Amino acid sequence: MSRRGKRLRLGSLPGRSLLSRAKRPGTAPGTLEPPPERRVEEVAIQVMDFGAETLDEKTVEGVEELLPYRDSDSVTWIHVVGLHDVELLRGLGEAFGLHPLALEDVLHTVQRPKLDVYEDHLFLVLKRLEVREEELQSDQVSLFLTRGCVLTFHETKGDDFDAVRERIRKGNRIRSSGADYLAYALVDALVDAFFPILERFGERIEALEDELIEEPTEETLERIHGIRRDLLTLRRSVWPQREVLTAFERQEPPLVRESTRVYLRDCYDHAVQILDLTETYRDLATGMLDVYLSRVSNRMNEVMKVLTVMASLFIPLTFIAGVYGMNFQHMPELGLEWGYPAVWGLMIAVAAGLLWFFKRKGWL
Amino acid sequence: MSRRGKRLRLGSLPGRSLLSRAKRPGTAPGTLEPPPERRVEEVAIQVMDFGAETLDEKTVEGVEELLPYRDSDSVTWIHVVGLHDVELLRGLGEAFGLHPLALEDVLHTVQRPKLDVYEDHLFLVLKRLEVREEELQSDQVSLFLTRGCVLTFHETKGDDFDAVRERIRKGNRIRSSGADYLAYALVDALVDAFFPILERFGERIEALEDELIEEPTEETLERIHGIRRDLLTLRRSVWPQREVLTAFERQEPPLVRESTRVYLRDCYDHAVQILDLTETYRDLATGMLDVYLSRVSNRMNEVMKVLTVMASLFIPLTFIAGVYGMNFQHMPELGLEWGYPAVWGLMIAVAAGLLWFFKRKGWL
Amino acid sequence: MSRRGKRLRLGSLPGRSLLSRAKRPGTAPGTLEPPPERRVEEVAIQVMDFGAETLDEKTVEGVEELLPYRDSDSVTWIHVVGLHDVELLRGLGEAFGLHPLALEDVLHTVQRPKLDVYEDHLFLVLKRLEVREEELQSDQVSLFLTRGCVLTFHETKGDDFDAVRERIRKGNRIRSSGADYLAYALVDALVDAFFPILERFGERIEALEDELIEEPTEETLERIHGIRRDLLTLRRSVWPQREVLTAFERQEPPLVRESTRVYLRDCYDHAVQILDLTETYRDLATGMLDVYLSRVSNRMNEVMKVLTVMASLFIPLTFIAGVYGMNFQHMPELGLEWGYPAVWGLMIAVAAGLLWFFKRKGWL
Amino acid sequence: MSRRGKRLRLGSLPGRSLLSRAKRPGTAPGTLEPPPERRVEEVAIQVMDFGAETLDEKTVEGVEELLPYRDSDSVTWIHVVGLHDVELLRGLGEAFGLHPLALEDVLHTVQRPKLDVYEDHLFLVLKRLEVREEELQSDQVSLFLTRGCVLTFHETKGDDFDAVRERIRKGNRIRSSGADYLAYALVDALVDAFFPILERFGERIEALEDELIEEPTEETLERIHGIRRDLLTLRRSVWPQREVLTAFERQEPPLVRESTRVYLRDCYDHAVQILDLTETYRDLATGMLDVYLSRVSNRMNEVMKVLTVMASLFIPLTFIAGVYGMNFQHMPELGLEWGYPAVWGLMIAVAAGLLWFFKRKGWL
Amino acid sequence: MSRRGKRLRLGSLPGRSLLSRAKRPGTAPGTLEPPPERRVEEVAIQVMDFGAETLDEKTVEGVEELLPYRDSDSVTWIHVVGLHDVELLRGLGEAFGLHPLALEDVLHTVQRPKLDVYEDHLFLVLKRLEVREEELQSDQVSLFLTRGCVLTFHETKGDDFDAVRERIRKGNRIRSSGADYLAYALVDALVDAFFPILERFGERIEALEDELIEEPTEETLERIHGIRRDLLTLRRSVWPQREVLTAFERQEPPLVRESTRVYLRDCYDHAVQILDLTETYRDLATGMLDVYLSRVSNRMNEVMKVLTVMASLFIPLTFIAGVYGMNFQHMPELGLEWGYPAVWGLMIAVAAGLLWFFKRKGWL
Repeated sequence: MSRRGKRLRLGSLPGRSLLSRAKRPGTAPGTLEPPPERRVEEVAIQVMDFGAETLDEKTVEGVEELLPYRDSDSVTWIHVVGLHDVELLRGLGEAFGLHPLALEDVLHTVQRPKLDVYEDHLFLVLKRLEVREEELQSDQVSLFLTRGCVLTFHETKGDDFDAVRERIRKGNRIRSSGADYLAYALVDALVDAFFPILERFGERIEALEDELIEEPTEETLERIHGIRRDLLTLRRSVWPQREVLTAFERQEPPLVRESTRVYLRDCYDHAVQILDLTETYRDLATGMLDVYLSRVSNRMNEVMKVLTVMASLFIPLTFIAGVYGMNFQHMPELGLEWGYPAVWGLMIAVAAGLLWFFKRKGWL
Repeated sequence: MSRRGKRLRLGSLPGRSLLSRAKRPGTAPGTLEPPPERRVEEVAIQVMDFGAETLDEKTVEGVEELLPYRDSDSVTWIHVVGLHDVELLRGLGEAFGLHPLALEDVLHTVQRPKLDVYEDHLFLVLKRLEVREEELQSDQVSLFLTRGCVLTFHETKGDDFDAVRERIRKGNRIRSSGADYLAYALVDALVDAFFPILERFGERIEALEDELIEEPTEETLERIHGIRRDLLTLRRSVWPQREVLTAFERQEPPLVRESTRVYLRDCYDHAVQILDLTETYRDLATGMLDVYLSRVSNRMNEVMKVLTVMASLFIPLTFIAGVYGMNFQHMPELGLEWGYPAVWGLMIAVAAGLLWFFKRKGWL
Repeated sequence: MSRRGKRLRLGSLPGRSLLSRAKRPGTAPGTLEPPPERRVEEVAIQVMDFGAETLDEKTVEGVEELLPYRDSDSVTWIHVVGLHDVELLRGLGEAFGLHPLALEDVLHTVQRPKLDVYEDHLFLVLKRLEVREEELQSDQVSLFLTRGCVLTFHETKGDDFDAVRERIRKGNRIRSSGADYLAYALVDALVDAFFPILERFGERIEALEDELIEEPTEETLERIHGIRRDLLTLRRSVWPQREVLTAFERQEPPLVRESTRVYLRDCYDHAVQILDLTETYRDLATGMLDVYLSRVSNRMNEVMKVLTVMASLFIPLTFIAGVYGMNFQHMPELGLEWGYPAVWGLMIAVAAGLLWFFKRKGWL
Repeated sequence: MSRRGKRLRLGSLPGRSLLSRAKRPGTAPGTLEPPPERRVEEVAIQVMDFGAETLDEKTVEGVEELLPYRDSDSVTWIHVVGLHDVELLRGLGEAFGLHPLALEDVLHTVQRPKLDVYEDHLFLVLKRLEVREEELQSDQVSLFLTRGCVLTFHETKGDDFDAVRERIRKGNRIRSSGADYLAYALVDALVDAFFPILERFGERIEALEDELIEEPTEETLERIHGIRRDLLTLRRSVWPQREVLTAFERQEPPLVRESTRVYLRDCYDHAVQILDLTETYRDLATGMLDVYLSRVSNRMNEVMKVLTVMASLFIPLTFIAGVYGMNFQHMPELGLEWGYPAVWGLMIAVAAGLLWFFKRKGWL
Repeated sequence: MSRRGKRLRLGSLPGRSLLSRAKRPGTAPGTLEPPPERRVEEVAIQVMDFGAETLDEKTVEGVEELLPYRDSDSVTWIHVVGLHDVELLRGLGEAFGLHPLALEDVLHTVQRPKLDVYEDHLFLVLKRLEVREEELQSDQVSLFLTRGCVLTFHETKGDDFDAVRERIRKGNRIRSSGADYLAYALVDALVDAFFPILERFGERIEALEDELIEEPTEETLERIHGIRRDLLTLRRSVWPQREVLTAFERQEPPLVRESTRVYLRDCYDHAVQILDLTETYRDLATGMLDVYLSRVSNRMNEVMKVLTVMASLFIPLTFIAGVYGMNFQHMPELGLEWGYPAVWGLMIAVAAGLLWFFKRKGWL
């Protein structure tokens, strides 16, 4: 039944990729293994180094080119695209003092959103959802915040950071604030990127509700199931994000300064809004299932009712006809001149009576 | 199927407006952008400045007219209707020391109710529900409380503050209390405005329950779904409101004085009552769905039962008639004088037997 | 369809009275407005003043008669029946230093159970359920505890305090304890009064379960819905009561003495038992709905099965009769002497075969 | 319908006994009233007094015989069977300094499991479930722990303490530990006694699951409802027990010594296991209801399908026979020599075609 | 119905083994009784003793051979396979100072995952799931952490520790860390071993979803019920594991050093991921049940619809044929030359009309 199979695209099972990519039980912690799939041709390191007055933006080849940025007073944002170059990662880890466990989590791109606090740096994992090939898929974005540097790691080229880059280039507030503000700006961009995703869900739900009212088919059911599945995926990305933001806001200086905290609180508000809507959509999807089941059953009832009425109408009539089809030699009615029209009359009267009865009962 | 489409007015999807009006991911925080829709012709600034003995009420044109009020010792309430004049807002922000992030939230009128604490002022976002064009819609009311001043922002002209204005004019307790008491009075008016909304829900639920008992139709189902949707919208406005009031009550002097706290606790009680009823109504709506499904199924069963009984009655009779309609040459019964009435007798006996059986089984 | 309408008495919608009696949004706090309905002819003030050795019980006319009691060292219980005399209430408030907000809540008899702590007195609101005119209705009981005095307010004459009065008259422990112990005794009487209410629910549930087993009708469904509604009402009264008692127990001396606390804990245990049973009954009511739906569907299935079996039995027989009712000139069977009995034999064999088949399948 | 009535034994309604035995609202706290039913002939007091080296076990008649034990240094366990001798109880209370409220709860044997802390003794109420007369019934076990003495109260003779008695006689660790260890041992015996109860539930669930797979009948539904009800009863006994154990472990010396605490923690672990299983069984019972409903509906569908297929098969054939049973004078087919076999051929072809069609659709 | 019985393999009831193996109520705590089943031939003690530079790996016979390891400074891992040698266990307990209650729990292999803190050692119980004989079964792994030693107890030979052994042999980080790091490594191996189990669940769910779309049968229902049951078992193992890890991380030095804590936090993250997926799968399984019920009902509806349409088509035609099969002497139509074809025409017209009507209604 390939036609059916094709019709139903539920998206991949929540957590499926997690399982197939989870590390083997018992391997040493901190072991760096590249992710199974290479999703960009070559690993690229993009650097933006800026102060209130200066801006240096380029693509570097190796870790050693990064060392001057690390030691400068300006804010440095290092964005790494592609994760399969384990050596480069190890080099970065040593140069910036990143914890091996955190680096391992960068490569195992199936983490739950979380914030890990190390002695002199923070490690954040966040999720980025994208609809690829008709399926809702989630990428991992890893972010390190050290004193003066932000390092972000991305498996693919597309990211949600273009607007932030633009703001840095334009030289507004972000240029004169520290690395924590930059980290905030990046996290905020990731959080706000859920709004368009939610908008898509809203559209899907509205389309489904229209479908439910007009003409629910079996595909409607599959779509409702699909949307519930996708909302589970969404929820798994969104719930822990809130905790991450709470924990981020609570970090003390020097990593997170007092002035940045108010912005993080604002970002937290957005995360709560997203969560709130996700839960509302889940409630709506459950409600739609109820309506679907009820409408399908109503429609079936309608079919059965009209048809059964029809059958019930003709069954007594057929009986009457059958009576006068009997071959008894002594059936006085058969010889009567007006017998035939009388039987017609009787049959019409019975039919009319039944119709009136059905009508009164509201079955027609 | 426009007729159906028209029948079902579910109200707008919860959170829909939020999504379409949410800021673009990655834009700088504190960017002031006017809301997409201009809902009043012109921005109006209404000022009420009062002390125990004095009352000054007027409409001003620009921010500079407000400066004397700001610096006076009396309590000043500045009510801004219409949000599209970004310059005016920026001016107000500078004059009263309002935080840019808060001002941004005033303009993005899709916030969740919340309370943000800034160094020397509080920022509250609350919701106001209104039934407009047969749909339950929510407006945002933003409120700033500084030392001596309350600023409120409203997108449209209609508001829930008329009774408060009246109380100020009449010169009762509110005149001799501070700005925190004024803020309380405004928040209280907003919270209490949910009661009439809930009353409407109560009426809708009672009407639906009557409908359920009398004659549930497919529209009843749609109405139940509609009410559950609207209750989701209501709940999204009501839940966070409670937390806002808890946080408000916990603020320390000088912004919120001890004497006002007891009033805020009273207001909090009302918010809890509203929340409580909302949840009760949600439970009721779920219960109504169960009753609906059960009643529809019962009614279908009734139809099927009566009709099937009728069919079952005539099927054996038709069979008997069919037997004596056979054309065998040697059918002794056919030649009997009393054959025909005997068959009638048989048929009546069978019918009576079946009816008795159905009756005993309780199917009639 | 008045017959139906009469059959279904769901009781009033939970919270309905709350809404219709809620104060108008924006009115000043502390405004004393009499409740819309006057439920006793005249307001009566009953006083019991007692010490270990003394007991003074009478009905007074005005507030000034109460002043000596207020200032004495004995414990005074002032019980006010009827709420429409606003002046009297204001007088009481002034005489005993009651907070205006609390007095307002006494009159708005739609409060949720709560405990408000004022500087030198406590204010408790509790609920009293009663089945009036076949409907579960809730009255509000307001209680003030000051140093040495307890004031209770009741809208109607009937109350749950008779046993407490008896104990005071008999002069047992209650006479030698303080006002806090009296307050405890009154609250305890109110809490324990829920047990008979719950007993009624238990009886209703047992009757419904019997009905479910014997002969569930459509009214059974309505009764289940009704009981779930009433349990929602009950739950709204019972949940906050627990919190009230926790808060009451936590009050410090001088209002609540250490020795009374152990009694309050006992009372709290009862409140938890009531809550526990309420939740259990809600679970039972949900379970009953499942059983109802299943039983109704089973009964329908039974009807359909027997009837369809009957129809299926006669349809092939009627076909056979129809075959030999055809008028072909060349039908050899028709001329056979034993044709007619043979057809009867065939028909009986077919019927027997079908019956055997249905039997084996377990459909008979 | 006595047959039905007998079939369904749901066990008594959870909380039913509580309600009928609850004290009358408003009676004085600490009033000792015997339980309504006398469940043993005579009240018996069993004493075990032991130290590391000594053991004295006997049955005493009155309170005064107990006084020497009370004042000795050895550990004394006083086990009272039967509760109707109120005087004896009052005597015990005075002799051992038990709080009147606690004594009242001993007699009102409908308490929720709880732990009350009094100045120099603890009072524990626990539940003991037993299947009596095919119904799950719960008894109350009350336990006082004073310095050096444990008092237990039981309404009936059977108890779960035999193994503890054996341990005391055998003279193991329990002999050289204090009263708190004895209390632990008794509580532990009560908690562990739930395991056999749960095992019975497990057996009932497994039997029901087999029934569900083999041949679900209407009684299966009643059994599922019955098990859900009994699980509600079980849950009401098990939930508060956990809190009791947590509170017990937290008591300070001298009543509970540090060394006993580790044993109480172990006992707490068992209580959590019991709770955990109870919740798991509730989930299973809900799952079984889904399976039941689905299986019943599947079986009905099977019946309907086969029967409707049969009907649909013969209806067209009967129509064909009917056509050639018409009496038109000019029906050329009737005169044909091969008309009759041709019609048979046609009918067989139609039947075969329909069967093929139904087969292809998977309806046979 | 053995065929059915064989088809449904639900796995063993959650908690069943717990109940049958739970200790008898009232037995003394710390009583060592071997588990009822002997699952390995002989008890084997495997020792790995290592420091940064040294590694000693062998199998010993008795407790006395272990004493030198206990007293050395190196880290010792003692892995005991098989639990039926109670004497050996008692010897180990004495030699390493293990608490008798903990040893008892080692033997009662039905514990919930937990962590018990004793004065100088920790006791952890964790679960290991395995699919044996088509059923999901859980083994208990007990782990003691003392200063310098880790003792693990396993009922069967197979374990999840091979990768850890390999890491010790290879001499990486684990060799130079303390006993707490070894304990972490073992716990981490156990936690990660849930990922393959979850992967199996994922595969089962995906297979079930395909089955749901293609051709849901009654076995699909049983499989859904089976997966829900197994998820309950999984959940019972996974939930408490999280708390165990939280508690483990919170232990103070010397048992758990600061440097190991970051690894435990990482392990905790994995446990949360596992829990998270378990809950997601439970939601999915519930969703699948809804889809199953809906699909089965849809398929039935389809059958009924087509068949009923067919019946409704022929019933009026059979009636018409019946009319002209009547034997009235005066039926003018019968004598008409074109009567027979006219009736055919009428019948075809009626059939066409009905088909058109059904088509328009969307029932074909």
